Amino acid sequence: MYFIVTKVDSRNFVLKGDIAYSKSQTKIQSFENSYLVCEKGKSAGVFPRLPAAFAGFPLIDYTGRLILPGLTDLHIHAPQFSFRSLGMDMELLSWLEKHAFPEEAKYRDAEYARRAYGLFVDHLKRGPNTRFCIFATLHVPATVILMDLLEESGLVSMAGKVNMDRNSPDILREANADASAAATREWLTALAGRNYKNTYPILTPRFIPSCSDDLMRALSGIQKQYALPLQSHLSENQREIAWVRELCPSSNFYGDAYAQFDLFGANTPTVMAHCVWSGNEELRLMRNRGVYIAHCPQSNLNISSGIAPARRFLDMGIPTGLGSDVAGGVHTSIFRAMTDAIGVSKLRQCLAAKDEAPITFEEAFWMGTLGGGSFFGKAGLPGNAGAAGSFDPGYEFDALVIDDADLAAPFRLSVEERLRRTVYLSDDRHIAAKYVRGKALFG
Amino acid sequence: MYFIVTKVDSRNFVLKGDIAYSKSQTKIQSFENSYLVCEKGKSAGVFPRLPAAFAGFPLIDYTGRLILPGLTDLHIHAPQFSFRSLGMDMELLSWLEKHAFPEEAKYRDAEYARRAYGLFVDHLKRGPNTRFCIFATLHVPATVILMDLLEESGLVSMAGKVNMDRNSPDILREANADASAAATREWLTALAGRNYKNTYPILTPRFIPSCSDDLMRALSGIQKQYALPLQSHLSENQREIAWVRELCPSSNFYGDAYAQFDLFGANTPTVMAHCVWSGNEELRLMRNRGVYIAHCPQSNLNISSGIAPARRFLDMGIPTGLGSDVAGGVHTSIFRAMTDAIGVSKLRQCLAAKDEAPITFEEAFWMGTLGGGSFFGKAGLPGNAGAAGSFDPGYEFDALVIDDADLAAPFRLSVEERLRRTVYLSDDRHIAAKYVRGKALFG
Repeated sequence: MYFIVTKVDSRNFVLKGDIAYSKSQTKIQSFENSYLVCEKGKSAGVFPRLPAAFAGFPLIDYTGRLILPGLTDLHIHAPQFSFRSLGMDMELLSWLEKHAFPEEAKYRDAEYARRAYGLFVDHLKRGPNTRFCIFATLHVPATVILMDLLEESGLVSMAGKVNMDRNSPDILREANADASAAATREWLTALAGRNYKNTYPILTPRFIPSCSDDLMRALSGIQKQYALPLQSHLSENQREIAWVRELCPSSNFYGDAYAQFDLFGANTPTVMAHCVWSGNEELRLMRNRGVYIAHCPQSNLNISSGIAPARRFLDMGIPTGLGSDVAGGVHTSIFRAMTDAIGVSKLRQCLAAKDEAPITFEEAFWMGTLGGGSFFGKAGLPGNAGAAGSFDPGYEFDALVIDDADLAAPFRLSVEERLRRTVYLSDDRHIAAKYVRGKALFG
Repeated sequence: MYFIVTKVDSRNFVLKGDIAYSKSQTKIQSFENSYLVCEKGKSAGVFPRLPAAFAGFPLIDYTGRLILPGLTDLHIHAPQFSFRSLGMDMELLSWLEKHAFPEEAKYRDAEYARRAYGLFVDHLKRGPNTRFCIFATLHVPATVILMDLLEESGLVSMAGKVNMDRNSPDILREANADASAAATREWLTALAGRNYKNTYPILTPRFIPSCSDDLMRALSGIQKQYALPLQSHLSENQREIAWVRELCPSSNFYGDAYAQFDLFGANTPTVMAHCVWSGNEELRLMRNRGVYIAHCPQSNLNISSGIAPARRFLDMGIPTGLGSDVAGGVHTSIFRAMTDAIGVSKLRQCLAAKDEAPITFEEAFWMGTLGGGSFFGKAGLPGNAGAAGSFDPGYEFDALVIDDADLAAPFRLSVEERLRRTVYLSDDRHIAAKYVRGKALFG
């Protein structure tokens, strides 16, 4: 049963400009002065000459500008946006106690939530990401406020009320499994009347240390009843992993603690953030069950988690996208996550794993576009919702138009070189237009 | 003998706003709604109430904005700015052959140099850095063009014609030591008539592999004759170090290869970029001779050099600032270098050196302001040129006014929290005004 009625905007138009997107995990395809067709909110492909079939579509001329797929942020904490760049001086578990939990507790106050989430969503709207998997807090009213704001923005997102009934401070803990499950049902019921077009609920147990076995069992029931996708955290930090081992003596490894409740891929579309310290057995299970990894290189660096083995994720064929993990990460832009993924992978090769080749630019760009955007086609969302991140025919039409004039060089740059410069050097100012599901957010 | 006549602008005024700067390597001092006095181009200090002595000075009211010292970039390659973010797919020595050398060879053409350096200097003018140590190329006319543009910009810089007479491609190599030395004298002679106020020559042997012993001997003579400071590269990459060992069998370590020619601190004010793999003996010699380190964390990551032991630099008391090392680094802003320095130091502790505590925010901010800015007081520059990077009385008046309104949080931020946000999140747009040596570049 799924109760949210979802309509995709039907829009037909053509954008003209210099177009680039990932043809595969290792190859970027670029098209100078070409035509990108949007038909009923989906890409109909890129053409050097406009086919007669689309000659009647309105054409928006972005000649000289770059047109790229929208980016997907597979992991971000909405309530933490408020303190990004503050408190970057400790590791995960202390950081949660000292910074994240006290700030999240404030969202009990709906007025605070409205103000803080307003800043957050305004910021996202201006940036290069078009899709998001978002953690809210455990508070039902605040989470609904966030989702209302997201829907209003035109962005596409899955957002989750967080579940946490243990090992958390009094100010930010649900009384027990029943209370947490009841609040989750209350949240889903509140959404039922809203008819969101672009905003979806996602089950969000914070992480194993915060969720009792009873709660996980209850969430498993809710997942089956509503066919919800799920997001959580996995193998981020070594102390956390040791803790999970204590808390779940019957699990073989961290991921197994989710799998025991059937909340780890297969019939439960799942995205797990981090996997910095995942072992082979965990990674193999993820591949076999199609569990997505949200690779969050900046957060892993800021809170001293380490460097995730992204080369292994890709080589093993585990579906992988990028996450900002604000406020473990400071920057929301997935362009930044791409360059961080490349950078830290080089350090991993230098210092920790000589046999793991660094992530290439092509791979990082793929992860930040199609890698993450494909989760929206796999999450079992209602209303024929599909994948984004590519301009191949059939993908949902998320596109950025980049005015890169002030990133010029004293020599001529190819479209692919301009793409590299955009990824490394652009900011919100360079986004001349932004389309999500075939609808212009601005530009 | 030093032939450049240098005058410091004499200007008296007061800025009012929220002020922060490094009181020491480990402590930032902040002042809400206070007064920063500029007297004859130097700071006269920060005051909660304006002392009567300065009551007659014109006051510029930046209430609600942040006022910070200007930043110093101790290491940047002007000709590489053109290809920043391109060719980030190899290590140092291959990267030099494939990307850096072919681009630098183009600066033989003065017209190309004028165009490319124009883009470079315009960009620097808008950013948060006020001082620079800059590598040009081996070409005398292009280097003079660069220095003319720098002088015109109002920024303060030391810039050097590069020396290289071996192990470089034909298109970018001087014929021999005599030719390189003669070109250096020609360059210094060309500057003699120019009466720069803010632009200084600095001797720039590229690195040991590019400079024959004869050339180093000749440069040592030129250094003594003109009392010039010196910049070069040191212990960036392990292959490079092995190569230096082959090229200079009589040197005990890489730094010793400079020291043998008296081009390594003591009577030769020196800044060396990188020191990623410097051993104890090398670091001790640097401390004893006051050799500055330009720590370039982003470049070290991009071209897979590793993570420099910045904790040891600071704990040993080696003078240390930050460098962008464009185009090994992609970003010119030293704000970015600060956050990169913090980030990679955490990974170094995780993966390579558990006993080396990460670089703190306070230390990174110090390195990017006073750490590097102090080199301008130590370099033996003419015209009573002094250090920058602090608002303590007597420092040259380099200041940034930051409009951080759009970095606001849903709660009140302290001045120090706003500083953190500025460092992590601001870009050129946030710089409302920029002062160098007491003169407004804009704002």
